[in-house]
Amino acid sequence: MPAVDVADEFETIRRLLAPLAHPEWGRGLADDVALIPSRKGHDLVVTKDALVEGVHFLATDPLDTVAQKLLRVNLSDLAAKGAEPFGYLLACHWSERCGWPERKAFVEGLARDQVEFGVALLGGDTVSTPGPASFSITLMGWAAKGRIVGRAGAQPGDLVFVTGTVGEGWLGLRAARELLHLEPARLAALVEHYRRPLPRTAFATAILEHASAALDVSDGLIGDLGHLARASGVGLEMQLESLPLSLAAQAWFDGRADAVQALSQLATGGDDYEIAFTARPGHESALRREAERLHLRLTRIGEVKAGEGVRVRYRGEDVPISRPGWVHS
Amino acid sequence: MPAVDVADEFETIRRLLAPLAHPEWGRGLADDVALIPSRKGHDLVVTKDALVEGVHFLATDPLDTVAQKLLRVNLSDLAAKGAEPFGYLLACHWSERCGWPERKAFVEGLARDQVEFGVALLGGDTVSTPGPASFSITLMGWAAKGRIVGRAGAQPGDLVFVTGTVGEGWLGLRAARELLHLEPARLAALVEHYRRPLPRTAFATAILEHASAALDVSDGLIGDLGHLARASGVGLEMQLESLPLSLAAQAWFDGRADAVQALSQLATGGDDYEIAFTARPGHESALRREAERLHLRLTRIGEVKAGEGVRVRYRGEDVPISRPGWVHS
Repeated sequence: MPAVDVADEFETIRRLLAPLAHPEWGRGLADDVALIPSRKGHDLVVTKDALVEGVHFLATDPLDTVAQKLLRVNLSDLAAKGAEPFGYLLACHWSERCGWPERKAFVEGLARDQVEFGVALLGGDTVSTPGPASFSITLMGWAAKGRIVGRAGAQPGDLVFVTGTVGEGWLGLRAARELLHLEPARLAALVEHYRRPLPRTAFATAILEHASAALDVSDGLIGDLGHLARASGVGLEMQLESLPLSLAAQAWFDGRADAVQALSQLATGGDDYEIAFTARPGHESALRREAERLHLRLTRIGEVKAGEGVRVRYRGEDVPISRPGWVHS
Repeated sequence: MPAVDVADEFETIRRLLAPLAHPEWGRGLADDVALIPSRKGHDLVVTKDALVEGVHFLATDPLDTVAQKLLRVNLSDLAAKGAEPFGYLLACHWSERCGWPERKAFVEGLARDQVEFGVALLGGDTVSTPGPASFSITLMGWAAKGRIVGRAGAQPGDLVFVTGTVGEGWLGLRAARELLHLEPARLAALVEHYRRPLPRTAFATAILEHASAALDVSDGLIGDLGHLARASGVGLEMQLESLPLSLAAQAWFDGRADAVQALSQLATGGDDYEIAFTARPGHESALRREAERLHLRLTRIGEVKAGEGVRVRYRGEDVPISRPGWVHS
């Protein structure tokens, strides 16, 4: 017998989700729709990402972190466009493992992140499924009219940057599956990053001011840079040795025999939720000042060239990449 | 082996979904986000509904009709608020039965309804799931500033109306499961209504002009009228004998021994996607004229009273309703 009675979808909305509702626009989650007044001089920016158990998160992941990951992968999309998030709609497809305590945990995760990232629930749907749990969020934000940062603005001569560190999502998944041998503290840090990535929302303003093109790294750094290059009609050259690694990733890397292969794995692994972007060289110092103010690591990893595709280099040599983008199975 | 290779999520977007994209605001589905300019004097109205295979549609339902049902249940929500839809975000959680031909069929269903209802795709996500297929849509529309019709405006003395016919969604599900014995043409009509309900988008303007409170009938007429009564702080009285039935539903009804029980089943069955609403008596003739112009059946089924709850009557006698709202299992 499932732990949640079917009639509890209403209770889930009334008791768990309604307290998260946007005080005005969410209409108490009692009216099928959300109502968002137009904001003068602004465009609405909208993104929608879904997570499926067994594909994007593990059956052993606590549901509060699943909720936070769901919100954060969407926040990451908006941050990379330079937009300011304000609210979201949520679809929960609860599986049988999602009884009342699990639903409560899920909502507590959302509540924490609503405070941290300044967003509120606008509406959505909650249903049961006989299959694995899945969830989707439609996240909304504002951008000053016509000011959004796309994928298509990179020009030859621009520099290529990435925020934070690369490869931890991929390592974190392997750590969560107990496939890595590292000190417990390192493993815990990697699992934490996999479960609860850090969207770079605070850096969105800097992206808006200084980036020529940007996207968030979800499918793997090299694959995503390929998307940016294609959209911009340019080529990119990146130096594998400049890849920013966390202490935990560095510890893993130090145990690898083949440095190039290890770095390639980190740069194609996906689930990073950092911002990869290009900027004119004249903007570099302003970007670094802003990153420093936010205590955010910012690494220059390459340069935009005429041509097409992503050319990966390691200590002056070309590196062949057979698997540029990671795709969820 | 699944019929769709994992890398085909990109191909699904590029080859199947991108042609459906809103020419400006969807950004070719190539930039993670949609961008919607504010519209002066208007509020944005947003709704999100999900469908799960085995819960809201059957594994035997063709995927073009699943796509249409998904879009239409969301269109129905907006119509009941008096809002004008323009676009949607889509999350597809494809199961293993969703190979390329099935995905193509799904998209063809969307394409047909985009033309019929004047909406375009804005963005979304497409992922694979080891479980049953599920889909969600976030639908957006415009309403003149401050003009939305809520659930809370009904007053004693208002009349209660419903569009179209009631109970066909419930009968249609039973027909699709081969649980009904009726002429083939009747069965086909019921199945068609279950698979492809008719959202009353054309009637949205009349709702906006004349209704005091409104909602779409998805959980069952009596249960949904209960929501409206509670939100408005009033009671409703409805006459079961005035329930509008289709020819197919009438044929089923004629074979029932217990008229009250049969009508109660139709009025609690759910999946109708008609609009139930209240209006001041002075608006009735204008509403009837507008319905006639649209060849839409409009039936007065009751009256708003002081008090609370829904009082169901049949030929002057009270009818006890034990199961006011139908909840998807």
